[in-house]
Amino acid sequence: MAKDKKTPRPKAETPKGFRDYFGAQVSQRTEMLRKIAEVYHRYGFDPLETSSVETVEALGKFLPDVDRPNEGVFAWEEDGDWLALRYDLTAPLARVAAQYRNDLPSPYRRYAMGPVWRNEKPGPGRFRQFYQCDADTVGAPSVAADAEICAMLSDTLEAVGIQRGDYVIRVNNRKVLNGVLEVAGLSGDDKEAERGIVLRAIDKLDRLGVDGVRALLGEGRKDESGDFTKGAGLDAAQSDVVIGFMDAGRDTGAETVSRLGELVAGSAVGEAGVQELQTIADLLAAQGYGPDRIVIDPSVVRGLGYYTGPVFEAELTFEVTDEKGRPRNFGSVAGGGRYDDLVKRFTGQEVPATGVSIGVDRLLAALHATQRLDTTDAGPVVVTVMDKARMADYQTMVAELRQAGIRAEVYLGNPKNFGNQLKYADKRNSPIAIIAGGDEFEKGIVQIKDLILGKAMAENATLEEWKDRPSQIEVGRTDLVTEVQKMLAGQS
Amino acid sequence: MAKDKKTPRPKAETPKGFRDYFGAQVSQRTEMLRKIAEVYHRYGFDPLETSSVETVEALGKFLPDVDRPNEGVFAWEEDGDWLALRYDLTAPLARVAAQYRNDLPSPYRRYAMGPVWRNEKPGPGRFRQFYQCDADTVGAPSVAADAEICAMLSDTLEAVGIQRGDYVIRVNNRKVLNGVLEVAGLSGDDKEAERGIVLRAIDKLDRLGVDGVRALLGEGRKDESGDFTKGAGLDAAQSDVVIGFMDAGRDTGAETVSRLGELVAGSAVGEAGVQELQTIADLLAAQGYGPDRIVIDPSVVRGLGYYTGPVFEAELTFEVTDEKGRPRNFGSVAGGGRYDDLVKRFTGQEVPATGVSIGVDRLLAALHATQRLDTTDAGPVVVTVMDKARMADYQTMVAELRQAGIRAEVYLGNPKNFGNQLKYADKRNSPIAIIAGGDEFEKGIVQIKDLILGKAMAENATLEEWKDRPSQIEVGRTDLVTEVQKMLAGQS
Repeated sequence: MAKDKKTPRPKAETPKGFRDYFGAQVSQRTEMLRKIAEVYHRYGFDPLETSSVETVEALGKFLPDVDRPNEGVFAWEEDGDWLALRYDLTAPLARVAAQYRNDLPSPYRRYAMGPVWRNEKPGPGRFRQFYQCDADTVGAPSVAADAEICAMLSDTLEAVGIQRGDYVIRVNNRKVLNGVLEVAGLSGDDKEAERGIVLRAIDKLDRLGVDGVRALLGEGRKDESGDFTKGAGLDAAQSDVVIGFMDAGRDTGAETVSRLGELVAGSAVGEAGVQELQTIADLLAAQGYGPDRIVIDPSVVRGLGYYTGPVFEAELTFEVTDEKGRPRNFGSVAGGGRYDDLVKRFTGQEVPATGVSIGVDRLLAALHATQRLDTTDAGPVVVTVMDKARMADYQTMVAELRQAGIRAEVYLGNPKNFGNQLKYADKRNSPIAIIAGGDEFEKGIVQIKDLILGKAMAENATLEEWKDRPSQIEVGRTDLVTEVQKMLAGQS
Repeated sequence: MAKDKKTPRPKAETPKGFRDYFGAQVSQRTEMLRKIAEVYHRYGFDPLETSSVETVEALGKFLPDVDRPNEGVFAWEEDGDWLALRYDLTAPLARVAAQYRNDLPSPYRRYAMGPVWRNEKPGPGRFRQFYQCDADTVGAPSVAADAEICAMLSDTLEAVGIQRGDYVIRVNNRKVLNGVLEVAGLSGDDKEAERGIVLRAIDKLDRLGVDGVRALLGEGRKDESGDFTKGAGLDAAQSDVVIGFMDAGRDTGAETVSRLGELVAGSAVGEAGVQELQTIADLLAAQGYGPDRIVIDPSVVRGLGYYTGPVFEAELTFEVTDEKGRPRNFGSVAGGGRYDDLVKRFTGQEVPATGVSIGVDRLLAALHATQRLDTTDAGPVVVTVMDKARMADYQTMVAELRQAGIRAEVYLGNPKNFGNQLKYADKRNSPIAIIAGGDEFEKGIVQIKDLILGKAMAENATLEEWKDRPSQIEVGRTDLVTEVQKMLAGQS
């Protein structure tokens, strides 16, 4: 006690915003990542795993949605250098593409999967460590590379179990927006501040709605707390052009492209952007990816500030109920686009790049929501311990089962209370318990207890049909493996 | 240029002691981890993935081989809390076992795989981030749990491709050492400092040899730099007992156990430890794990200071040449043992636990050394671009190949220089290039170029046998997929 007073016990807690993943939560993610990697690999991408730790200098201030440098990362000083945990998989790719530029094939096509860390305020379902799974092509100027990423994203979603019709990939283009800004009279060097305000306003469409965005495009907006955000100072006609861009979606891709063409008429960059969208649509149509899977949609605004060309987002369209019980679309699970400036930070040379990032935890949650995940994690066959002195015999049984490929273990807790052993087997979702005491060893037999049937009987005690099926059988010791195999087969 | 002067370009470098893994380096590790997980799972262990970040408080000062708290970790302050990257997978397990003690099954059997981080001086082949792959049973007092871990380690090594005879798992016991210390007169509460010195001396056997250890057991030792390390002050007879322990290995396990029994005669803890070694040997023998795979070996001293009971180490026994060209045994790739005090830090309750940790990178290096890894990473079939305007046609070809399960991609770099496209295919290890220009499209054909054969011919230009095999064939466009499949089959 005296010692306890001196050094209080540490708290057994994860740090705020971090969590642990148990059992099926791990294996389901592993399995999903394996399926994604299989598609990425088939498309010709090679795996890359960068270190989790980067210099703050190399990471730069490219974290999307954050204005200030190094905001939002976990960073610390080490021997005079500032190090940080990577906040995404794109910044490390840019560093790799620059560091190994003389050795890597060009284009360099890589996929990467792993945790990233964000020093943000945690919230319900928002964690400070989460998985991403990216694929990028570095050094490919052609929009064929963007079209390919969209096709791959579609294949990937279907490979992990999202059915066609339950998702749509929406494609937009930053260049079209640049054209819109030009038409709205915001293209000059002296208009950088206004362009920034417009971009941030557009990015807030989801949250603020059209009226909120319109206020920010004009004089400014007072939020609920009374804080005033200065607007871009556009007049009504200018604002109409920007709003018109977000609202240019039409029934068919051809109509949408045509409407966008009207909006940016006269702007070279805008017209080039519209042409790119047209090319992407044509390339995808030639491969059979129609608007049931991939659509041109100017309302995709997320990431427009970050990317420099085509932008895409995968949205799951089926309904789930939100925390307040209201139905709503599941929403975005992946996004990406073209970013031609990231490598330039290091080398001074512009390197065209495009890629996609899948929010692994969101996608897993979606599969849970559609109940397309196998959530039953079959526990091991448990060989119970009736007689401590016979541990070698029990371990021999379990060794035989394992050699036959059957998941199995001996109960290794204190064997005194047999009920605890069965409770353990229940907690582990064990399909079968093996029971053998002095009597059984003498007779050369073992008892095989069907725990699945036992559970079903306990839940449906009155059902006649169970009567004929024994929940426990006695078999010869030498038949252990075959009888367990038989019972497992009968359970599934 | 003015801008470049203001903000100098960031260096494209990993932080010191960190590295990146490319292509086959990633997929080989993924595959090895998958095989290990398969064995661990079959033995009844469930996956667990803890967060990479822990509170410094929860991690504690349990880093093996480091005396001072928090030495050797990457740590930083965050909102008043000190956080750190985990330095192993055991400390987080202890935290989890304490945090969820009311919900987890008991015993709790989990496996975990992932990177750990150590803030140590990097050196050749020594990195500050590396993978571990652990399995532990928490809440199992029986040495049957230790024996099981040894058997599993043996199965695991064989599952990943280390052949029987190329490894040995050595088992020792901290309790035997405690008995030795008691016999040497070092058991009193007032002898804690001496016991610490003895433990550290034993741990240095590999580096210092018997004479160096003997010096540290006695008056002390002056190292090459002239620094003096104070010894434990044992007399010659006391030192003989300790040295005798490390040197107690005999031809058979029975002889070794008998010799150890003599050494600790009269010490209750020592005799219990010898009995545990005997039980482990018996349990393993009953399951068929003989001394060709697992041996009792008192010369295993690594980790004796850390663990509280049985200790085991897997050593690869085949020879490799070291950096100076001298032959030596490959050495240790995994280790583990019983640690009954880790959870107690949090709860005050002693929880018996035992487990193993595989050094994933070491084991991968071993597989490389034995050349039992498939190091050829087959690149994608590359559809070259002869005519930019036909990109939709090329992407359609590649889509057909992918749908048939063939790894394939269109060349997405600048297609102007056709030689660059073939150089790219070469760098990617591509087996086949597809070539189709205006002529081919007109005739409804494609060219399929065998790059493997092409490479072989370039290397063996004089060989007659190549003459009859064409390195490039012309096939109907509709036969593309079947002809590529045929060529791939012929190459393997």
